[in-house]
Amino acid sequence: MISIVLIEPEGPVNIGMAARTMKNFGFSELVLVNPNLTEESYEYAVHARDILANAVILEEFDETLKLFDLTVGTTGKPGKRFSAHRSPIYPWELRKLLEGYTGRVGLFFGRESIGLKNEELERLDVTLTIPTSEAYPVMNLAQAVAVVLYELSKGRPEPPVEALKPATKTEKEVLVETWRELLRVLDYPKEPERREVFVKVFNRAIRKSFLYGREVHTIIGPLKKAVKRLEECE
Amino acid sequence: MISIVLIEPEGPVNIGMAARTMKNFGFSELVLVNPNLTEESYEYAVHARDILANAVILEEFDETLKLFDLTVGTTGKPGKRFSAHRSPIYPWELRKLLEGYTGRVGLFFGRESIGLKNEELERLDVTLTIPTSEAYPVMNLAQAVAVVLYELSKGRPEPPVEALKPATKTEKEVLVETWRELLRVLDYPKEPERREVFVKVFNRAIRKSFLYGREVHTIIGPLKKAVKRLEECE
Repeated sequence: MISIVLIEPEGPVNIGMAARTMKNFGFSELVLVNPNLTEESYEYAVHARDILANAVILEEFDETLKLFDLTVGTTGKPGKRFSAHRSPIYPWELRKLLEGYTGRVGLFFGRESIGLKNEELERLDVTLTIPTSEAYPVMNLAQAVAVVLYELSKGRPEPPVEALKPATKTEKEVLVETWRELLRVLDYPKEPERREVFVKVFNRAIRKSFLYGREVHTIIGPLKKAVKRLEECE
Repeated sequence: MISIVLIEPEGPVNIGMAARTMKNFGFSELVLVNPNLTEESYEYAVHARDILANAVILEEFDETLKLFDLTVGTTGKPGKRFSAHRSPIYPWELRKLLEGYTGRVGLFFGRESIGLKNEELERLDVTLTIPTSEAYPVMNLAQAVAVVLYELSKGRPEPPVEALKPATKTEKEVLVETWRELLRVLDYPKEPERREVFVKVFNRAIRKSFLYGREVHTIIGPLKKAVKRLEECE
């Protein structure tokens, strides 16, 4: 299940056109945070007014996060240097990643003016970008939605018969916490700031990975064991 | 060389947004037949006003045909029965068709209200359609342009994006080997067969994840440290 999440969309027309394009490609779950939703939005939705009428409307970015197992943030400005939230994947890569995935996915699009803020992208699991010309990389919001949904709908698989359960947000968090524990008992790296960086990198790696619950548990087990054993041996 | 041809576009906003999306994907040649081009079009073109200013403006559909070696007409209503102008190809098929093609290509989009007329589609060489939901197949004009140009621009050489190095096979293998070592020194799980299953699950999880080399190294470090410390403490 993939939901479209528009963070503080500024243009009523864009909201309507995004809803229309969702219906064009067979998506129906819309979440709006602090939207500039007007009568005009409904006009531009044309035959997708039901999607606007059924949209979940929230006031804070933070409230959206608990709705999903996997969150994807879009950006028109992928950075040049290594940075967790600026190492984006392309739409066709996302399509492949989502093949067979059964968790709840939130596909986030930012404001027309400034997109998603860095601190927002940092809190989302995966960063997505549409490859555009360097001469003019910033797309219209509703067109960006159209392109991504076109790509995703291409590969939409039949719902898998035997569903492997994707790791929940909480399971991933427990894994990261266990990792933090391990570094603590190892006292490695020595400097607390570097250690925090190690945890951050691990956290990003886990969050963007498509792990099943079972996999996460199979990894947590030995890590916990190691922590315990290391503590005993001090 | 691919030109975009809008036949009698009715919405000034759509004309501007089509120009913008052209520039987003690196296209510049626009042909307009009998367009409703207004100041608003220029506003919605944002940084692609030059494309509007340089557009070729014609009065008749027929005049466009002599500009191109290959003409492609888009339709949102592919027919159910076989018919030359109603047996359309998909955007990714067009991309493959155009690979290596050096002639002048005209990509035609019809009116918002009724699209391209049957007699127009019949005079064009290829019919293209975007696969959409049966519940609502008719896309907004500018979004249809965005989707097709996104797909066509995919085939072009990748722009030199920042080179984040994905983890190599070897790096991932080292990570898995280190994990195996950890389970060994922990003697966990006790039964060798179960332990092998744990390693296998870990291996699968790592292999399917999109990890960067740097991330893999940041994970291997503490694991190696843990192995060493646990060995010393035996």
